[in-house]
Amino acid sequence: MSEIPTAIRFGITGCADIARKVARAIKLAPNATLYAIASRSIDKARKFAADSGLSGAVKIYGSYDQLLDDPCVDAVYMPLPTSLHLHWAVLAARKKKHLLLEKPTALDVSELDKIMEACESTGVQFMAGSITSTMPGTQDFLESNIRVNPNLDALGALGDIGWYCIGAILWAKDYKLPTVVNALPDVLKNSAGVILSCSASIHWEPEDKTVATIHFSFLSHSSMDLAMTGSNGSMHCIDYIIPYQENSASFDFTSGATFVELQIGWNAKPGEVTVISELPQEALMVQEFARNAEDIRKFGKRPDSKWPEISRKTQLVLDAVKKSIDLGCKPVKL
Amino acid sequence: MSEIPTAIRFGITGCADIARKVARAIKLAPNATLYAIASRSIDKARKFAADSGLSGAVKIYGSYDQLLDDPCVDAVYMPLPTSLHLHWAVLAARKKKHLLLEKPTALDVSELDKIMEACESTGVQFMAGSITSTMPGTQDFLESNIRVNPNLDALGALGDIGWYCIGAILWAKDYKLPTVVNALPDVLKNSAGVILSCSASIHWEPEDKTVATIHFSFLSHSSMDLAMTGSNGSMHCIDYIIPYQENSASFDFTSGATFVELQIGWNAKPGEVTVISELPQEALMVQEFARNAEDIRKFGKRPDSKWPEISRKTQLVLDAVKKSIDLGCKPVKL
Repeated sequence: MSEIPTAIRFGITGCADIARKVARAIKLAPNATLYAIASRSIDKARKFAADSGLSGAVKIYGSYDQLLDDPCVDAVYMPLPTSLHLHWAVLAARKKKHLLLEKPTALDVSELDKIMEACESTGVQFMAGSITSTMPGTQDFLESNIRVNPNLDALGALGDIGWYCIGAILWAKDYKLPTVVNALPDVLKNSAGVILSCSASIHWEPEDKTVATIHFSFLSHSSMDLAMTGSNGSMHCIDYIIPYQENSASFDFTSGATFVELQIGWNAKPGEVTVISELPQEALMVQEFARNAEDIRKFGKRPDSKWPEISRKTQLVLDAVKKSIDLGCKPVKL
Repeated sequence: MSEIPTAIRFGITGCADIARKVARAIKLAPNATLYAIASRSIDKARKFAADSGLSGAVKIYGSYDQLLDDPCVDAVYMPLPTSLHLHWAVLAARKKKHLLLEKPTALDVSELDKIMEACESTGVQFMAGSITSTMPGTQDFLESNIRVNPNLDALGALGDIGWYCIGAILWAKDYKLPTVVNALPDVLKNSAGVILSCSASIHWEPEDKTVATIHFSFLSHSSMDLAMTGSNGSMHCIDYIIPYQENSASFDFTSGATFVELQIGWNAKPGEVTVISELPQEALMVQEFARNAEDIRKFGKRPDSKWPEISRKTQLVLDAVKKSIDLGCKPVKL
């Protein structure tokens, strides 16, 4: 009698660069294992396995369908271009694969709802795989890279970097949805009309007294700033998407700061808060996702609704930013 | 034959709290001396002199007119409420006093132009005295402080904190004027209609590919953030108005940062740049102003046009933000 393996077996559909980072994260997560890799080209899948030091250790498939039909695959990490998500994510869910779907989750929330309905109907866990994969763009990148191709990633910088900006803001507001979103003028697009750079302001009900501004761009120096100020404190993090080092992350925090006599200085400098983690953030993500999958498999639990809810809210705000841009930077109500 | 004193003799009109900081700066600046203090109440002027350790060392006047009529006063520092600037600043200029005028310089640029014309006609130096004087507001402050009184400082948080935000942005753009300014929704006002909190976006010609967002508020924790990202670098300063310590100021700077293999970290952490100064920034301001005044007195030079130009551009952008707010957050062209 063979023992049921406890590690969740992952299949990866698509050999994007970012998949190498997640392949490593799956290897690092103690409750996950990388089981299969699929590409539309079997040679590409083989090369990916070899480059990742996985030759002989993983199954190689020359089509996504074959991987999704493998009953040993428990979960799929899907780093496909956004325009392919609807088809393949729904299919994966129907094949009862837990779904770790690279961000942006879909072109809009109506697509995402179809994906989530498929996940709900088969009881699989959904989670957005928020792994950034963007560098400041060269001229070549800005015209031809997959992330700025209207047929592949039509949301451009909004879907890529904007996803994180929105995610961070929603996190800061404890996932309370805003009421109004307003893209700011100076939206820059490439010749195919894909967003390269844009800013937006995000607003809640007046009694919230909260405003957020976000800026996402393929045109500028790598910059990942999150600054928040509330009634009683302020914090800054300047590497909130990818920490400078993978085993620790820092932010500064000040509370109750005021000026000294004559206002010639402050009573306090910000304190630095450092969070140490043995596993990199993407491995923690895989671990959490695999834990949810294991809870479903072993204990018959329902999928954790937290992750699809967060993704759906992020997508709703992203849709509103897109709509505001399309309307010529008019305010859009949510 | 008496020697002509080289130190510029300052008079201060008005005994606002902030005047104590500038009185100290005048004492610290090697080429300036505090000569006279005026208040509408001579007792208040006396108390101010005593509190500042100046009793017996300065002339005390019970009216601004008397101070302006004193031929020994070379220059005036004027920390009066903004609505009083037009009258008193023009009078000071006519009396040939160099004018260090507390920010915001005027209620709008048409008032400022009258002040500057008066300065030009008598050949005196104009400089805006950008010394902040704001703490996060208590409920009492927000309804009754001079800075939120429509008859005294009608511009509220815009004139006080917004002045610095605009100044920093213009500095970063080497004083190139923007083309469009747009206040964002969620403008918060007190019961008298004075701005307590607001955000705005600032835009240049499309080929500039620059956008700036500013936020100024009396409602939040003390926070003085300046973050800039260009094509090739990023910088952050979180105490750009009042440095944490008065003899040094720091910012961080990164150039050419990119991600390491697999994007699990960065190739560089930001470097910290620290600027040491023997004199606090407000004493440097007084020193520069007194140097200009001395150049005019001793060498017959024209006033330095740099300072009025910077102030006028700051006021122009501030006016545009105000107009955008008044129009219900519509874009305003400059």
